[in-house]
Amino acid sequence: MNAGREALEYRKRYRGVIGVSPKIPIKDTKILSLVYTPGVAAPCMAIARDPAQSYLLSCRGNTVGILTDGSGLFRLGHAGPEAALPVMEGKSVIFKTFAGIDALPICLRTKDPYEFIDTALALSSTFGAFCLEDIASPQSFTITDHLGRGANIPVFNNHGIGVAITVLAALINSMKVVGKDLLNARVVINGAGMAGLASADLLIKAGIKQVVVCDRDGALYKYRLKGMNWIKEEMSQQTNPEKITGDLANAVKGCDVFIGLSVAGALSKAMISTMAEAPVIFALANPTPEILPDAAKEAGALIVATGRSDFPNQVNNSLVFPGVFRGALDVRARTINEEMKIAAARTIAELVSDKELRPEYIIPRGMDFKVPPAVAAAVARAARKTGVAKIEVDPESIAQRTRTLIYEGEPGYRTKEGVT
Amino acid sequence: MNAGREALEYRKRYRGVIGVSPKIPIKDTKILSLVYTPGVAAPCMAIARDPAQSYLLSCRGNTVGILTDGSGLFRLGHAGPEAALPVMEGKSVIFKTFAGIDALPICLRTKDPYEFIDTALALSSTFGAFCLEDIASPQSFTITDHLGRGANIPVFNNHGIGVAITVLAALINSMKVVGKDLLNARVVINGAGMAGLASADLLIKAGIKQVVVCDRDGALYKYRLKGMNWIKEEMSQQTNPEKITGDLANAVKGCDVFIGLSVAGALSKAMISTMAEAPVIFALANPTPEILPDAAKEAGALIVATGRSDFPNQVNNSLVFPGVFRGALDVRARTINEEMKIAAARTIAELVSDKELRPEYIIPRGMDFKVPPAVAAAVARAARKTGVAKIEVDPESIAQRTRTLIYEGEPGYRTKEGVT
Repeated sequence: MNAGREALEYRKRYRGVIGVSPKIPIKDTKILSLVYTPGVAAPCMAIARDPAQSYLLSCRGNTVGILTDGSGLFRLGHAGPEAALPVMEGKSVIFKTFAGIDALPICLRTKDPYEFIDTALALSSTFGAFCLEDIASPQSFTITDHLGRGANIPVFNNHGIGVAITVLAALINSMKVVGKDLLNARVVINGAGMAGLASADLLIKAGIKQVVVCDRDGALYKYRLKGMNWIKEEMSQQTNPEKITGDLANAVKGCDVFIGLSVAGALSKAMISTMAEAPVIFALANPTPEILPDAAKEAGALIVATGRSDFPNQVNNSLVFPGVFRGALDVRARTINEEMKIAAARTIAELVSDKELRPEYIIPRGMDFKVPPAVAAAVARAARKTGVAKIEVDPESIAQRTRTLIYEGEPGYRTKEGVT
Repeated sequence: MNAGREALEYRKRYRGVIGVSPKIPIKDTKILSLVYTPGVAAPCMAIARDPAQSYLLSCRGNTVGILTDGSGLFRLGHAGPEAALPVMEGKSVIFKTFAGIDALPICLRTKDPYEFIDTALALSSTFGAFCLEDIASPQSFTITDHLGRGANIPVFNNHGIGVAITVLAALINSMKVVGKDLLNARVVINGAGMAGLASADLLIKAGIKQVVVCDRDGALYKYRLKGMNWIKEEMSQQTNPEKITGDLANAVKGCDVFIGLSVAGALSKAMISTMAEAPVIFALANPTPEILPDAAKEAGALIVATGRSDFPNQVNNSLVFPGVFRGALDVRARTINEEMKIAAARTIAELVSDKELRPEYIIPRGMDFKVPPAVAAAVARAARKTGVAKIEVDPESIAQRTRTLIYEGEPGYRTKEGVT
């Protein structure tokens, strides 16, 4: 049976992959009366007096809404909200498995970004944070910007920022391997969708000076007229300081790093041969990379990463989002700011020790359970340092509790550990 | 420790009462790749081609959105969406325990019924059905009406119709006990909120001819001017055929049944003494009834029901909604129509056998697990009969599967039983 067929059978047998579980079984009317009427009145009244109590007396503090409109799935075009359900359920499984977070798929029937924003704002009382997924660009930037400012809970665009953080982590370690200075690396990103532009933005905020973004119309530069939109305009001001023009082949000449967040076959062996010494290739198009690892190596690439688990160096945001949300939720962060994102990237990079670091191992593997606790602690620490944490929790206790959640599937409710 | 304090401690310890569970644990990268990337592409594409496949390939077909704005909680006024979370989580536990349904609390930050409707419509692709809860009247009627017509999934106002079905079930059996004809019973309902008006509506649709609704301004009648709104106007045309005016004390004179969905102390012993022979009193205000059972009995009541579990004859919609949704979901009903509601009420009534039936036992108890399977089958049968079932499933297999869900917490995914 091929993988697609097996996945279909699997989904069909279980009718989706997640369910709701009561935290304690209703065994008698005593427990029923505590959970339901009349016991439920007391927590309601406590929250009515002080809505912040919803983090203590309801599931809100551990619940993430995974929001999408289904517009940016696998280059399917606007496939619609129903088609997004299996992806969001899969994310929910990752959230739970890697960080003990209860994440609900919320696939919205709308094509208008402002309607999306209004709907999300109406939903913001039910959740501790929002995870935006698979929304087509530039609407995804519009939604992320507005919602981030308007909602009183953190908003994280996983499709964009989640990928960007993983890319930055892989880049930090790649530069160590090839012995180049990260901040002076010349980086070309192919793809000006959510993931490409979010990666460019984060790399620049991390201090990397030479970042050029290309799309099907070639390099983005300040005076370009063709195929622009507001976010490309904004990014064209921040990237490409030398105002390089022309196509991808021209842009990659002499560059140190190629990051593909575009389509299969976008990068040729000939292009790699024009890059600077020791080329680093992240060919992250899914399921087929911009260039296959063997071909890239033949053309001289020293490090190759892809989005796939069947090659070395998988760059996938599942390394990032469970820990980022765990940390943000546990300190009740107002937002997820640049410092928190960069801290997550540095932490992921550091989880590959200098001894382990080599061209075939620049980033932890997908099932590495060391990652989420470390990321959660780093994000919590950065949130405290930058003043966006609403409550004081020791980052180390967050890491410890995340480990408990991962290995025991048990949040340690009964102890005070990490819980305030 | 008193009950309220214990409920608070309980909620605080567990941080709410529900969580998300993966249906299968991620034990290795093989399963991860089936659930997540790249396996997830196949079900997405199948649903993109045919959105109805979302019922088979995602959780949608077993998932209910419990929607509220927090405007109608325990007479707290508009307590806000956060305050509603503990109630909706409690409902979710009931949904799972009594019918194996995954129900997600969705508490909306809005005070505008049209914004509520738009938000719910945007959410309708994620859910198999909507359960509306604790929305203040008359907005709840506005929302139920519009959403029921606009959404392509069934919408059920549990706060209103759920109570109404339970009331009708209790009334059917009460009339048997007192030996009066149901359809000719004179019924006074006190309370013109969601539950009162929805009950009046269902009783009339069930064929009961003499129903009078009272509120703080007395009996609703066609020409009344004070304290009216659109739904009271509508109901004043359908109820009170004799155009009785005046206060509750006047309305109950000579009536057979009093149904209180109002406030503590609304009914006096003196009023009961003016009712017809063998008075039936449903004093359903929570937590304190319109009159306490002992007082009602002293005044001559033959049957007394309340909303509480610590007196005989608890009338609570938890008898209704798990089975109604189970049946509606399993035949993929387009809507939940009057025939389905009345079938649910008759089935609940019939679950008390003629041998068991007595003044202290007119309705099954709260933890009676016979109820949801029987209700689910009856609702499914009525849906098929009235042509609103989108798929053909044998009602008996639905009852059997509901029993499996209740007793084994296991939906029988591996068998074909009740699953199409």
